[in-house]
Amino acid sequence: MFESAELGHKTDKESYAAAVPALRAALLDAQFELLDLKNFAVVVLINGMDGAGKGETVNLLNEWMDPRHIQTWAFDSPTEEEAERPFMYRFWRALPPKGRIGVLFNNWYTDPITDAVLHKRKKARLEQRLAEIRRFEAMLVREGVLLVKFWFHLSKPGQKARLKELEKDPRTRWRVTERDWRFYEDYDRYRDVASHALRQTSTGDAPWQIVDGSDPRFRALFVGRSLLQILRRRLELAHHPWTPRQVAPPLATAMDTLDLLGSLKLRQEMKRKQYEDELERYQGRLALLTREAAFRKRSLVVVFEGSDAAGKGGAIRRVTAALDARQYRIVPVAAPSEEERAQPYLWRFWRHLPRQGKVVLFDRSWYGRVLVERVEGYCSEADWMRAYAEINDFEDQLVGAGAVVVKFWLAIGKDEQLVRFKEREAEPHKRFKITEEDWRNREKWEDYAHAVCDMVDRTSTEIAPWNLVEAENKYYARIKVLRTLCERLEAALGK
Amino acid sequence: MFESAELGHKTDKESYAAAVPALRAALLDAQFELLDLKNFAVVVLINGMDGAGKGETVNLLNEWMDPRHIQTWAFDSPTEEEAERPFMYRFWRALPPKGRIGVLFNNWYTDPITDAVLHKRKKARLEQRLAEIRRFEAMLVREGVLLVKFWFHLSKPGQKARLKELEKDPRTRWRVTERDWRFYEDYDRYRDVASHALRQTSTGDAPWQIVDGSDPRFRALFVGRSLLQILRRRLELAHHPWTPRQVAPPLATAMDTLDLLGSLKLRQEMKRKQYEDELERYQGRLALLTREAAFRKRSLVVVFEGSDAAGKGGAIRRVTAALDARQYRIVPVAAPSEEERAQPYLWRFWRHLPRQGKVVLFDRSWYGRVLVERVEGYCSEADWMRAYAEINDFEDQLVGAGAVVVKFWLAIGKDEQLVRFKEREAEPHKRFKITEEDWRNREKWEDYAHAVCDMVDRTSTEIAPWNLVEAENKYYARIKVLRTLCERLEAALGK
Repeated sequence: MFESAELGHKTDKESYAAAVPALRAALLDAQFELLDLKNFAVVVLINGMDGAGKGETVNLLNEWMDPRHIQTWAFDSPTEEEAERPFMYRFWRALPPKGRIGVLFNNWYTDPITDAVLHKRKKARLEQRLAEIRRFEAMLVREGVLLVKFWFHLSKPGQKARLKELEKDPRTRWRVTERDWRFYEDYDRYRDVASHALRQTSTGDAPWQIVDGSDPRFRALFVGRSLLQILRRRLELAHHPWTPRQVAPPLATAMDTLDLLGSLKLRQEMKRKQYEDELERYQGRLALLTREAAFRKRSLVVVFEGSDAAGKGGAIRRVTAALDARQYRIVPVAAPSEEERAQPYLWRFWRHLPRQGKVVLFDRSWYGRVLVERVEGYCSEADWMRAYAEINDFEDQLVGAGAVVVKFWLAIGKDEQLVRFKEREAEPHKRFKITEEDWRNREKWEDYAHAVCDMVDRTSTEIAPWNLVEAENKYYARIKVLRTLCERLEAALGK
Repeated sequence: MFESAELGHKTDKESYAAAVPALRAALLDAQFELLDLKNFAVVVLINGMDGAGKGETVNLLNEWMDPRHIQTWAFDSPTEEEAERPFMYRFWRALPPKGRIGVLFNNWYTDPITDAVLHKRKKARLEQRLAEIRRFEAMLVREGVLLVKFWFHLSKPGQKARLKELEKDPRTRWRVTERDWRFYEDYDRYRDVASHALRQTSTGDAPWQIVDGSDPRFRALFVGRSLLQILRRRLELAHHPWTPRQVAPPLATAMDTLDLLGSLKLRQEMKRKQYEDELERYQGRLALLTREAAFRKRSLVVVFEGSDAAGKGGAIRRVTAALDARQYRIVPVAAPSEEERAQPYLWRFWRHLPRQGKVVLFDRSWYGRVLVERVEGYCSEADWMRAYAEINDFEDQLVGAGAVVVKFWLAIGKDEQLVRFKEREAEPHKRFKITEEDWRNREKWEDYAHAVCDMVDRTSTEIAPWNLVEAENKYYARIKVLRTLCERLEAALGK
């Protein structure tokens, strides 16, 4: 959930100053178009960590747009009068009418999340409240409300640095309370609860936008631009009365060139000698782990995704070399067959789920929905937007049934890919591996990169996180895959 | 949920024999059109009580349609192989491809409901499984599956009669096991759990159809006709590629002239003297109850709905006469104002929710969405179909916050209404009460009656049941309203 938001995005003064005037003008335009049209209301939810710039950003939005048509609500503890009514009462009363923008700070998410962190309430209680929120928001969306949800995030070191800095300066020291440090100490728990809550409520119709809150200029531009983009798309839809009332799913927008894949050091060091040693070691460990008695009550589902020629096949062979041939199956995933196209898109993966004690390795997977199908337009935007939550549900069920789910993205750069394509073409026995399609996919490199970042942000979960593998050095990549598998299995088997 | 299904519908031999040939032909036609089109799959869920005719009806469907294109699955306990995979594994594998009909018996509802009844598992566990089912079904619907859900119901006396009859005959005695009687003893619990589960999963896109299972001919025709109607509507949509992929919400169809309102004895006896005695008595009781210390931690929300001239106003005045004027408010509900139209339809009711210790009486209510707005076409079918679940959620929140929710439908016949209209027109001080609109509404009497029955079936819940009030004798109606209020309050305050 927070992968991209922990990269430390920054915007310098000059870029910021250059960008703001046009953004303000465009936001104002959109705001007045909304007001003229009176066709839908906009509800902006502002949530997230303390110190990640929630208040500042809201002030800025009010400054940038016409504050007469923005209603900002900051909810504190309920008043006596509010406490005597249903929990949602005060939020209902704060909904903006059609044509207006309502900014709701500390809204219906605050209490369930804080409760779960501080009072360590039962998980079932949190689940129930999140399910209620999903239904409530689905109703709002169907009633035509455009729901824009921002979560302001700070990494743990970022949070610590912020508190230390405030304490250092006598003028700001008072702002740091004991409660702040207590929250910092609970950071990991808070992050887990938040990540879970966001995942459960990030639907196709109302997905969360995660804001990297560390740099004031970056977060201001990010929120302003995201809001503008989402608002503009909906305004365009509203001009076409024949369009179904499906809300245009907002997108996490790449605001600068810093992204998850770009920030990886793709070429890592590993010499042949070290590789051979470690290969033997990890294959041995994996062989033992999958033959453990405890594994007979579990199963292993491994997903391999990556650019063309990133080395998925080679990595898979190094894994299977450690396994008993009766124990594993490789499922190569290509375009769906006619039989498969007559079913929901997840159906063709359900049929290959392993029994206990077994391993299934997917060479490409259900993530095709949010990668190739998204980029090539094989399904509608609404379809792939809802797929993130559906895939999370699917993996939830797998894990609930005892499967260990390990997901790898093998990453290489565009130049390295070109080198590998040419090598393959030069070698007769590898030439079959390169097709016209591979060359065509290369042309959409940026689109794929963007789709991969969204995928990791939206489907890397506590129970089935993504593992990004720097794969320009094949030795390094294969060892990282094997080591990750061993570590995940050891954790799962209680080693 | 089960109100209409407990009326004891019956179809005689002749009507049945006359109806079947055309129904079979139409079902076959629809089936082959579906097969040609290959545009969507049909999943029919068969659930409900033992002995309510599930098996017989499925056999009949197979007989009536071409069984080569129907796949029937009866799930028993999972096999060893299935048990090692996620709970949904075997159901996923049973999904029919596009163009086909799959009939799934004992499906993903069976285990959660049975578990909750027999093992008295924690409520939170049931809630969680129902939430998962909702999400799973939402995904199927968005993937284009037409989901038709039948619940076969038997009333408690019906269930008992059936068991007794089987036991009487030596040839069928073996069919009654101890488990059957144990289930019968748990009938009330089973009914509650089922009602709750159906309510939680009856969505606008995939609502439940409740089948009165007591008469074999009636239930066969009911299921056949419902399936035909739902299938036909979806087939029509499928021919219009520009239509949004919203599934046409199926309707509970009135199959005969026996309905909830029609089965009431509208004119009940009550003489003036008795009325005056009981009025005094119940007003006194109500006055005391609302002045109890315990009531200061609760609130009372009363909904009055009914035909025009059914006597809502008169009944409300008899209630308020017992209350402290500072304690209650009457909210008359007419067409929404401009301010209200700029908000989700429930918004205008949220603002009137009572504090603790207070009473709000709604003279017409949020049920307008599924009554006048449905009948007059002020909102789309998809909108009012989803409203049932949204209203249930809303009332859940009210009750969760301590409100006692009491809902009345005041019922009079069409002839009685005419008499009252004419009386009102004749009396100068009452003439303002009759408008053109009232006369227009009369013309849609049948549509309104149908909408009322659907409303009661879909929103009469364990926590906020509907009370049907026979209102042709005003004395009787007012006393029944007062008595019901007293009883509900006494139960809520633990008297």
